[in-house]
Amino acid sequence: MKGIRVIDMTSVLSGPFCTWLLSTMGADVIKVENPAGDMARTSPPFEDDISLYFASLNRNKRSIVLDLKTDDGKIALQKLIKTADVFIENMRPGVRERLGCGEAELAQLNPKLIQASISGFGQSGSLSDRPAYDIIVQAMSGMMSINGPLGGPATRVGFSVGDIAAGLFAAVGILERLYRRDARGEHGAGVLDVSMLACQWACLENAFARYLNAGIVPEPIGSGHPSMTPFEVYPTADRDIVIALGSERDWPRFCAALELHQLIEDDRFKTDAARIDNRQSMNAILDRVLQTRGSEYWRDTLLAASIPCTVIENVKSIADSPLSQEYRAFSGVKTASGRDMRFVRNPIAEPGFKETAAPTLGQHTAEILSELGYSADDIARMGG
Amino acid sequence: MKGIRVIDMTSVLSGPFCTWLLSTMGADVIKVENPAGDMARTSPPFEDDISLYFASLNRNKRSIVLDLKTDDGKIALQKLIKTADVFIENMRPGVRERLGCGEAELAQLNPKLIQASISGFGQSGSLSDRPAYDIIVQAMSGMMSINGPLGGPATRVGFSVGDIAAGLFAAVGILERLYRRDARGEHGAGVLDVSMLACQWACLENAFARYLNAGIVPEPIGSGHPSMTPFEVYPTADRDIVIALGSERDWPRFCAALELHQLIEDDRFKTDAARIDNRQSMNAILDRVLQTRGSEYWRDTLLAASIPCTVIENVKSIADSPLSQEYRAFSGVKTASGRDMRFVRNPIAEPGFKETAAPTLGQHTAEILSELGYSADDIARMGG
Repeated sequence: MKGIRVIDMTSVLSGPFCTWLLSTMGADVIKVENPAGDMARTSPPFEDDISLYFASLNRNKRSIVLDLKTDDGKIALQKLIKTADVFIENMRPGVRERLGCGEAELAQLNPKLIQASISGFGQSGSLSDRPAYDIIVQAMSGMMSINGPLGGPATRVGFSVGDIAAGLFAAVGILERLYRRDARGEHGAGVLDVSMLACQWACLENAFARYLNAGIVPEPIGSGHPSMTPFEVYPTADRDIVIALGSERDWPRFCAALELHQLIEDDRFKTDAARIDNRQSMNAILDRVLQTRGSEYWRDTLLAASIPCTVIENVKSIADSPLSQEYRAFSGVKTASGRDMRFVRNPIAEPGFKETAAPTLGQHTAEILSELGYSADDIARMGG
Repeated sequence: MKGIRVIDMTSVLSGPFCTWLLSTMGADVIKVENPAGDMARTSPPFEDDISLYFASLNRNKRSIVLDLKTDDGKIALQKLIKTADVFIENMRPGVRERLGCGEAELAQLNPKLIQASISGFGQSGSLSDRPAYDIIVQAMSGMMSINGPLGGPATRVGFSVGDIAAGLFAAVGILERLYRRDARGEHGAGVLDVSMLACQWACLENAFARYLNAGIVPEPIGSGHPSMTPFEVYPTADRDIVIALGSERDWPRFCAALELHQLIEDDRFKTDAARIDNRQSMNAILDRVLQTRGSEYWRDTLLAASIPCTVIENVKSIADSPLSQEYRAFSGVKTASGRDMRFVRNPIAEPGFKETAAPTLGQHTAEILSELGYSADDIARMGG
């Protein structure tokens, strides 16, 4: 996306995640902040006074501070918009109009501009005024209702799937509209209204397919599988492991690997259906055997028998493992204060893409105003 | 994406979700199946002998059956590849080569082809042979380690985030490469290697940012927030609700809405930090009050006081609510057997896009072979 300029008036998570993705594919992302800055800059924890939350999401962007309550700020934004390919915002519906950058105004300034909005519930409709924290959207969408321990309460998904999914859908939508504009010469396809709620529904396509067409209401099932077992978490002498038998043909090999040959022909366990019925007695046997040895022994033994198995990893065990290096999981950046930080990579960016640290507030105000043709005096007046 | 042809050799979930997204934006998706068909066709539950799992993911596609163990099948695939813009597969690394459609072969047949692969752990490296069910990837990536009840075990995320995230990243990558090819005239940018594992890491960007730069190892925290409260689930006289105070200024209005005026100036609860320290005594008070009335009363009362709040919905309560109609959550299709089915929409597709039912196995074999110039005799011989 080299040569594509994105004017980014998003904050916190959904929008910044989207524009981070675009930045790693070469887009020139200009983050427009008000004098107080993106609220995420105040999110703990901090290192060197930098919010790690903010630092992860705003790599590769330039920050310009514009006070849109002043004429100077408004005019500079208009000049920027004229140079842009994409405008993206995730303010509450209605706020952009009050800031002088409503859809019609921007389209008039730049008829070829792709305009994208991310909000909790879309730009119009009876929910559009509702606040839209990730947990609210997870609860309203049904996402929480299928997550959590078996038989237990609806539980928030541990990562901010409400925001992250919306950021991904927004990236898809922006790219599709850029394609139509630049590869097909289409006009007027430039507005994208991404609702976090609807993106959660799309992620729940299977749960809705079951209810809408068969009346089934899915509930939290912990780590188990509705129709296959073993396909779940087991204890060992140390860390827990996941064992996932995806085919009926796996059972004899699995039993042999555990030296439980007597189970192979046991009618209680010969099929998935039988094992589901007798899961408790099966798991009592498996738990006892698996707890005699450590997780790595069982992982290696079961994988050698072509049984899908893994230790349950966490961010520390992954980051400390040679696999994170082999798979180039992370990329390093140097902050303005000279500190080295590491974050995850965008897995579909070009492997050689070199990331830069998230900007300090207004770090590029002077640079960008200068590119727009402002004089040194004007820039000084505008706080650059 | 009208006029973009996608040859889809994916099965089950990650790839079909990606190509469903592309289909809803107008791409011509040709699903190439072996004579046994996509394994997902056998996934319960069924309605009219149609797997709902399959039916949701394969809307708007055409199905051609090709036996790639025969010369007829191989040649027909080659002819198809020559007509295509995108090829996508999610077989285990190495399998496509055995089927005669390795990367080099396809590039030779069609140098402008965008080739995308989705796999558990990428096309190369020490993990590439590992089986990659969603739960395995969730466990290996750290995703499970931050999901589940507070203080409880790592729990699988209730929807198949390992597959869905990979499908979304693949869609982003395919669109970006199509853009470079068709809007920029770039050559040789055509291969995309999507690893489910790396996509999970990207979703965990915040968890990794904390560990890599501050040594914090996030764990399951249920539905709570690490630094804000109330920002969690509360019981009422009927269904549970989520209350999420996102700002310190919310507390006095929240107390007033609950008619707990005496708490406003209570030092135990005046700040987020104090409330985190005294969460148990605060929640004892809140639980008692909230259980005196039903969830809808509290939702409406708190929203009227500008306090973010929602009832925890499930797929049934959503589908049965007028909101799902107002927001056009679902689209209807008619199956080959004449049955009406409903599924979720792609939230970023054009609102007017009309979806068609998932194909029966080989439903379009004759049609597609005919388009490729095969005679009626040839088509009959090839099972069309």
